[in-house]
Amino acid sequence: MTKLVLISRDYDMAHLAPMIRRAAPELDVTMHGSHDALDAEVAVCWNPPVGAVAALPRVRLIHSIAAGVDNILADPRLPDVPLCRVVDPQHARGMSEFVMWGALHFHRQLDQVMANQRDRVWLRYDQRAPATRTIGVMGLGEIGTRVGLDLHRAGFAVRGWSKRPKDLPGIDTFSGADALPAFLQGTDILVCLLPLTDETRGLLDARLFAMMQPGAKLIHVGRGEHLVPGDLLDALRRKQIGGAIVDVFPNEPLAADDPLWDAPDLIVTPHMASVASPETIGLQVALNVRRLVGGEPLHHRVDIARGY
Amino acid sequence: MTKLVLISRDYDMAHLAPMIRRAAPELDVTMHGSHDALDAEVAVCWNPPVGAVAALPRVRLIHSIAAGVDNILADPRLPDVPLCRVVDPQHARGMSEFVMWGALHFHRQLDQVMANQRDRVWLRYDQRAPATRTIGVMGLGEIGTRVGLDLHRAGFAVRGWSKRPKDLPGIDTFSGADALPAFLQGTDILVCLLPLTDETRGLLDARLFAMMQPGAKLIHVGRGEHLVPGDLLDALRRKQIGGAIVDVFPNEPLAADDPLWDAPDLIVTPHMASVASPETIGLQVALNVRRLVGGEPLHHRVDIARGY
Repeated sequence: MTKLVLISRDYDMAHLAPMIRRAAPELDVTMHGSHDALDAEVAVCWNPPVGAVAALPRVRLIHSIAAGVDNILADPRLPDVPLCRVVDPQHARGMSEFVMWGALHFHRQLDQVMANQRDRVWLRYDQRAPATRTIGVMGLGEIGTRVGLDLHRAGFAVRGWSKRPKDLPGIDTFSGADALPAFLQGTDILVCLLPLTDETRGLLDARLFAMMQPGAKLIHVGRGEHLVPGDLLDALRRKQIGGAIVDVFPNEPLAADDPLWDAPDLIVTPHMASVASPETIGLQVALNVRRLVGGEPLHHRVDIARGY
Repeated sequence: MTKLVLISRDYDMAHLAPMIRRAAPELDVTMHGSHDALDAEVAVCWNPPVGAVAALPRVRLIHSIAAGVDNILADPRLPDVPLCRVVDPQHARGMSEFVMWGALHFHRQLDQVMANQRDRVWLRYDQRAPATRTIGVMGLGEIGTRVGLDLHRAGFAVRGWSKRPKDLPGIDTFSGADALPAFLQGTDILVCLLPLTDETRGLLDARLFAMMQPGAKLIHVGRGEHLVPGDLLDALRRKQIGGAIVDVFPNEPLAADDPLWDAPDLIVTPHMASVASPETIGLQVALNVRRLVGGEPLHHRVDIARGY
């Protein structure tokens, strides 16, 4: 009987066990820390403690519960066994929902209205048509494209920036490093949905924030390593950035003493912009374990050298 | 030269003056409280102080800056002259934007995430598909229909309730008082967009809240007089309602000592769900004053007996 162990230091994974069992009743599913977990052959992980997977002598598959695997690759003692991720067919929709919420939050000045409520201040603002509000989407892959088209459909003026030129209906596109200043100049709300590469690592830094319109907003739902947290904190404190929603950070989970928690005009969300459903996670993990046992090729296996 | 005065006790209307002048340069636009305002013939109002319009001996037109006129009719000393409102062609879209924001806020549990941030708690929740979340729209007039169809397009399960039976694509419809309990039973997020009538006044009371699913959410963007504020406060405190966004209140603006300001799980917004743009207000007011001066029929005149 193949044994799986669920491992996380910040996410309660207990409810995933019945989902995996439902999809593959022959599996033995246990929790990290239980006495019988040590002979597990499969580690299902989200932000595992350093060394927790290496402590399993029989482990031969590591499975993320999400598309992201940075949180697992961050463990320097990770054993050299296959790593797979969950690819939710609804991932782009979840992301689009979250970005739409954030765009409307800033567009309709709910950030200011909610701050006013804390001060018991009743203050009505003028309302702008969405066509007068420009949202700039960085990264025009499958997800960035879906997000941009949904924002365009909601009436916003949408522009996009990508490494290589793209042509998208209703979206004003820019490409390459040279076009970045012009792209940022006209952007009221910046959305980061870039992939993580050597060129994009640390891109959201003081230099980029200085190129944005004073008071522009940021919605960061790309990858944690895009962001230089100290530079964001500084830009928020100096009101260079008028507000931000940040879902991903270089160090997750944020430590309790991290100054970002109460940075001015910042909403911190816990890497939740798009999360696979428990049913999808259970099904994809269970089927991949069956493939492992049957000696078949694994699905959604990560090329560790490329990082995705 | 026809004189207009802008009157409000809670909204800074100064920026409307240039909009009105741009549309009709022949008008003399002044602010309430200025020494030359007393001979104004037109009062442009939002939440005017009681008696302020009656204090203008030459007044012959009262103009709201919005579709709503309750805030003006609340003045018991209002003189008997025509009352007109602004009808923004984008009103339904503004309302749909606001409700979409609120629906996503609850659907994606941003209320809990933002409360967690205040406690420096990083906690990820499972994500439900929007099709598993039922939004119930009360009131299926032009605006309620637009809101319901937009929510349906965003993937939510949508049901609607109206006085008379309606048939709308993709929306599960209920009608009449007898169907109200069944409508509410299946609703996760209730949206009120009803007109104000003798039957709907005070409808959002303890009796209705008791019919909702425990922990269901409320987005109230109908009319202030639908709501019984003490009953809402009680339902929130007892966690009968899991969260609410309320944009309209029987007494606006909310007094600084109103207990609703810091009611648990309540977002108070200042009657802002859909606000006409300054350009639209300026244009419609200016054109109606020209009609008044020219003896032509006024547009969007309110039938005071019906209240709309």
